[in-house]
Amino acid sequence: MFVKEGIIASPGIVIAKALVYEKILVEVNKHKIEDTEAEMVKFQNAIQKSHEQLEAIRIKAINELGEEEGAIFEAHAMVLDDPEFVEGVEAEINNNHLGADYAVKIITDRFYEIFDQMDDPYFSARAADIKDVGTRVLQNILGIVQADLSKLDEDVIIIADDLTPSDTAQMDKKRVMGFATNIGSRTSHTAIMARSLEIPAVLGLGDITGTVKTGDLMVVDGLTGKVCVNPTNEQLESYQNEKIKYQNYLKELEALKDLDAVTLDGRKVELVGNIGEPNDVAGVLKNGGVGVGLYRTEFLYMNSDVMPSEEKQFAAYRSVLEAFPNGPVIIRTLDIGGDKKLPYLPMDDELNPFLGLRAIRLCFKEIDLFKIQLRAILRASIYGQAHIMFPMISSITEVRQAKAILLDCMKELDQEQRPYDKAVKVGVMIEIPSAAIAADIISKEVDFFSIGTNDLCQYTLAVDRMNQEVSYLYDPFNPAILRLIKQVTATSEKKDNFFTGMCGEMAGDPLAAVLLLGLGLYEFSMSALSIPQIKKIIRSVRYEDAKNIADAALNMDSGEEIMDFVQESMKKLNLNI
Amino acid sequence: MFVKEGIIASPGIVIAKALVYEKILVEVNKHKIEDTEAEMVKFQNAIQKSHEQLEAIRIKAINELGEEEGAIFEAHAMVLDDPEFVEGVEAEINNNHLGADYAVKIITDRFYEIFDQMDDPYFSARAADIKDVGTRVLQNILGIVQADLSKLDEDVIIIADDLTPSDTAQMDKKRVMGFATNIGSRTSHTAIMARSLEIPAVLGLGDITGTVKTGDLMVVDGLTGKVCVNPTNEQLESYQNEKIKYQNYLKELEALKDLDAVTLDGRKVELVGNIGEPNDVAGVLKNGGVGVGLYRTEFLYMNSDVMPSEEKQFAAYRSVLEAFPNGPVIIRTLDIGGDKKLPYLPMDDELNPFLGLRAIRLCFKEIDLFKIQLRAILRASIYGQAHIMFPMISSITEVRQAKAILLDCMKELDQEQRPYDKAVKVGVMIEIPSAAIAADIISKEVDFFSIGTNDLCQYTLAVDRMNQEVSYLYDPFNPAILRLIKQVTATSEKKDNFFTGMCGEMAGDPLAAVLLLGLGLYEFSMSALSIPQIKKIIRSVRYEDAKNIADAALNMDSGEEIMDFVQESMKKLNLNI
Repeated sequence: MFVKEGIIASPGIVIAKALVYEKILVEVNKHKIEDTEAEMVKFQNAIQKSHEQLEAIRIKAINELGEEEGAIFEAHAMVLDDPEFVEGVEAEINNNHLGADYAVKIITDRFYEIFDQMDDPYFSARAADIKDVGTRVLQNILGIVQADLSKLDEDVIIIADDLTPSDTAQMDKKRVMGFATNIGSRTSHTAIMARSLEIPAVLGLGDITGTVKTGDLMVVDGLTGKVCVNPTNEQLESYQNEKIKYQNYLKELEALKDLDAVTLDGRKVELVGNIGEPNDVAGVLKNGGVGVGLYRTEFLYMNSDVMPSEEKQFAAYRSVLEAFPNGPVIIRTLDIGGDKKLPYLPMDDELNPFLGLRAIRLCFKEIDLFKIQLRAILRASIYGQAHIMFPMISSITEVRQAKAILLDCMKELDQEQRPYDKAVKVGVMIEIPSAAIAADIISKEVDFFSIGTNDLCQYTLAVDRMNQEVSYLYDPFNPAILRLIKQVTATSEKKDNFFTGMCGEMAGDPLAAVLLLGLGLYEFSMSALSIPQIKKIIRSVRYEDAKNIADAALNMDSGEEIMDFVQESMKKLNLNI
Repeated sequence: MFVKEGIIASPGIVIAKALVYEKILVEVNKHKIEDTEAEMVKFQNAIQKSHEQLEAIRIKAINELGEEEGAIFEAHAMVLDDPEFVEGVEAEINNNHLGADYAVKIITDRFYEIFDQMDDPYFSARAADIKDVGTRVLQNILGIVQADLSKLDEDVIIIADDLTPSDTAQMDKKRVMGFATNIGSRTSHTAIMARSLEIPAVLGLGDITGTVKTGDLMVVDGLTGKVCVNPTNEQLESYQNEKIKYQNYLKELEALKDLDAVTLDGRKVELVGNIGEPNDVAGVLKNGGVGVGLYRTEFLYMNSDVMPSEEKQFAAYRSVLEAFPNGPVIIRTLDIGGDKKLPYLPMDDELNPFLGLRAIRLCFKEIDLFKIQLRAILRASIYGQAHIMFPMISSITEVRQAKAILLDCMKELDQEQRPYDKAVKVGVMIEIPSAAIAADIISKEVDFFSIGTNDLCQYTLAVDRMNQEVSYLYDPFNPAILRLIKQVTATSEKKDNFFTGMCGEMAGDPLAAVLLLGLGLYEFSMSALSIPQIKKIIRSVRYEDAKNIADAALNMDSGEEIMDFVQESMKKLNLNI
C-alpha cells in the first residue's frame, strides 16, 4: 500500500483497477536525406491517413461526448490543412533535405512553443492540440500503432504520463472511471476531459506510471488530491464512506440548480459563467448559471487565420445572447496583447508585456479591428441583454475614448438603419489598481464593474504569478486587494442601477465566497462547474454574518491571517467546503 | 534663420558661434585573416596606446573637472584590462581567425548591448563607456586620429552627433559655451557633462550636424529646449534679455542655499538628494541639500566584477554618512533584478522582469549577499544618521522578514563586539500599490516611508514607461496616484516620530512641488541640481494655499485636468517655474 499526492483536477472518489497506458515514445533524430520526393510522399500519405483517423475519432466523439468534443478533432484536421504547417514541413524536406519525420517534429515543436508560452488556458489547449496532431502525423510516417483503449473488459482507472484529446476521444468511456497521471495541471486537457466526463482525476503525480502496475486496486480521491494504491481493508472502507458522502453532496447541489443564489436572510446575488465560446453556454445552463459574466472573445480571434468578420462575430454573440433571454451576457472586447498574440496582427516584442500594449490599449491603436467587434456586439444586442465590457481600463479618459468609438459605431448603424439596443449597458473590467482606486470617478461613465482579480492582484502586488520565483507573493487575500474590492463595491452600492461583479478566479473559490459576499459583491462569474458549490455556500450563510466576517478581515494585517480567519469562521458557521 | 526644438538637457541660454565636431565614422567588416599572430600584436599595441591616451586624459580631467570625472577614465582603463573583454577579443582572433578590428567591434557591441538594455542611468552610462573605449581601441588599431577640441581660439557651441566622455574630457572647457547634438537624452553623458560644466545643452535635435555650419552664430536655449541658428537682430535682443533674467534667477537661487525649505506660513520640509555613489555627495552639499533621501547602492555592486566586500561597502556608506553629520542618509538596500543584472549573480530571464525577482525579493533568496550589505550599513551607522530602506515591499510580512534578517545581523555584531547605532531607523519604499494601500498596516513596523513614484506609477497604471507604445499612459498626476500619496502621508501624519518622503522623479518636478507640499509630503529627495528651484517654490508659497490646491486636485477626474489646474493655480500665486 502507498499513497501519493498530486493536483486535484476533477472531484469525486473512485475505487477500481489500474490500467497503465504507456505510449510508445517517438524519438526522431536529425538526418539528411537524398530522395526528397520519397519523403514528400511519406508526408502526404501520413497527412491523408491522419485525416481518416481524425474523421473516425470525430464521429465517435460527437456520438459519445457531443458536438463540442467533436469540434476538437475538426480543429485537429484544420492543423493538417494549415498552410503554415504543411508548407513549413515541405520546406524542411525540400530545401533542407530533412527526413519527413524530423521535419514534422521540428515544425510541430516550433508551433507548440509559440502557443505554450502564452498564459491562457485556451492557448495552452491549442498547444496541446498541435502536439497531439504532430504526434499522430509522426506515428503515421513511422507506422507506429498505439495501444487501443476503445474496447475495455472491466472498469478501470487510466494511469498515464499525460492524455491527449486523441487518447481520450477513443476511450471506452463506459469503462473509464478515473485518471491519474504523471504530469498535467487543472487546465490541461486531461483535467478538462475528466471534469467533462465527471470522473475523478488527480494529476501531476510524478512517476505514477512507474509505480503502479496494471491490475493494482487503487483509489483516486479527487477531493483531497490523493491516490492510494493497493489500499488496506480499513482504508477501502473509509474511502467507500467518503464516496457515499460525496454522492449525497452532489445530489444536494443538483437540487439547487433552479433555485436562486440567496442568503438565509434574503440577500440575492447573481451567479453567472465565464465562457470562451458559444459551446461553453451548455455548461453554464446545466450548472444553473443565470447568464454570462465574462465572454472572453479572444477565442474567436485566436481560432482563426484571419481577422474574424463582423458577420462571424455577430453570429457568435447572437447565439450566446439567445441562450440567456432573461440573464445578462457580458461581452468583453478583445483582450489580446501581453502574452497573447494573433498570427495576423504582428506586434513588437516587449520587455514587460503585462505592462504593455494589450487589450483596450491595442484596440485604440487598431481602431478598425475594434469597430468591427463593437458593431458586431451592437447588432447582436437586440437578441438578449447584452453588456459591453472594456478590459485594461486605467482611467476615465480611456473610458471616454472607448465610448466615443462606440458612439461612432452606433451612428454608423443608425445610418445603415440596422437595429441595436440603444440602452446597451457599458462597463469596465476593474483589473488595474488605478481603476479600483478611482472607481468613483470611472463609475460616472459606466453601468457596471467587473473585478478581474487575477490581473488586479498581479499589478497591485507587482507580481507575475506565472513566474515561479515570485508567485508565492500572489495572494488575493492580501489586505490591499480586499480593500480595493471593498472600495469598488462601496462605490457601486451608492449608485442606482449599477452593479459590481467579479470574473477572476477568486469569484469561483469556495474559500473566498463568504468574504466576497460580505464585501458587497453582487455578481459572481466563474467556471460553470464551480457554480453549484458557490450557490450552496451562499444559500447556507446569513448576509449579516458574511458582512461581519468581511469587516473583521479588512482590519487584519496579512493575507495569511485573513485566510486563517476565514477558514475558522466558515467552520464555525458549519460551512464545509 | 531657423529654430529647432530638442530635449532640454542643461538649463541656461548661450549665444556663440557653432563648431561642428564631426567624428570619423569607423566601419569595419568581417574579414578572415591567416596571420593571427600579427593581429594579436595589432590588438596588444592598440591596448597599450589606449592606456597611454586614457592616462593623459585622466590627468587633464582631474585637473580641470575634478576627481570624479577623472574616475571615468580609470573605469575606461579597467575595461582595457577586463579579462572578459581582452580574452573575448583574443578568442575571436585566434579561434575564429577574425581581424583585430572586427574582433574588437563585435566584443564591444556584445558588451554594449548587455548594459544598454537596462533601464537605469548608471548602466546606460556604463554602456556608453564601453562604446567609447571600444571605439578608442578600434581607432588605434586603424591608426585614426580624431579632431582635436583641446585648443580653441574663441568661445564656441559644440555641435555633434553625440559626445563621449573622451570627447568632453579633452575639450578646452574655457571656450566651450554649450552643446547641441543630434541624439541623447536627459541622462546621457552629454547631458550630465553639460550640467556639470553648467553650460546650456539641447539634445536630440535630429540632424543638427547637417544643418548648422561651423561659424554660424547660434543660440542654445536650455530653458525652452530650442536652438536658434543665425538669429535676427530682434531675436538676438530677446535672447539676451532672457539670458539676463535667467542669470538673475540663478543669483536668487544661490542666495537660498543655506536657508531652510520653509513655506511663507512656516511649514518646514526637508530637501535632500538622490545619490548613486559617494562622489555625488559634493553636488548635494553644493546645492543646499541637508541629507540624502535615496542612496542607490546598486552602483557599488554594478561597478565591480565581484560581490563588493563588507569592508568596501562599509567604507562607502561611512563616507556618505560623515558628509552629513546633521542630516539623514537613507541607504536603500540592493535594488537589483528586473532589468538590472549583476555579472557575478546569474539570473534567469523573466517574461515580465518588472513583476519578477527584484530588490528585496532577490535579497530574500540571496540572504548571504543581503546580510553582508546590512552588516556594512549597521557598522557605518555610528558615523551619522543612518536610515535603512527596503525596496519593493508589498506587504507587512516582507517587512517582518527583512527586519528579522536585520536583527540577525545585529546579534552577530553584538557577538563580535562591533558597535552600531541600536536605534538605526528602518523604513520602506512605497512603490508597489499594495504597500500604499496598506500603508497604515506597514507603518506599524517602520520609522519612515519613501514614495517611489516611478515604480508606483508603473504598477498602479500597469504601464511600462520605457515602452513607447504605452508610455503616454504614464502620468504621476493621475488622480489614483495622488490618492495613494495622500493615503500614505495621512497615515504618516497620525504617527509620532514618523515621516514620509518621496524619491521618485516627481519629487524634483517644479510643477508637482506645490501639489506634493499640499498633500502633506515632508521630505523631497531629488537630483541635487533640482534642489534650489524646489526650495524657491516652497519658500514662495503658503502651506494653506498648497493644501487647498491639493484638496481641489484630489476631487478632479483626470490627470490632464489636474495638471491644467495646478499650472493655473501656480500662475495665480505668481509662482513662475
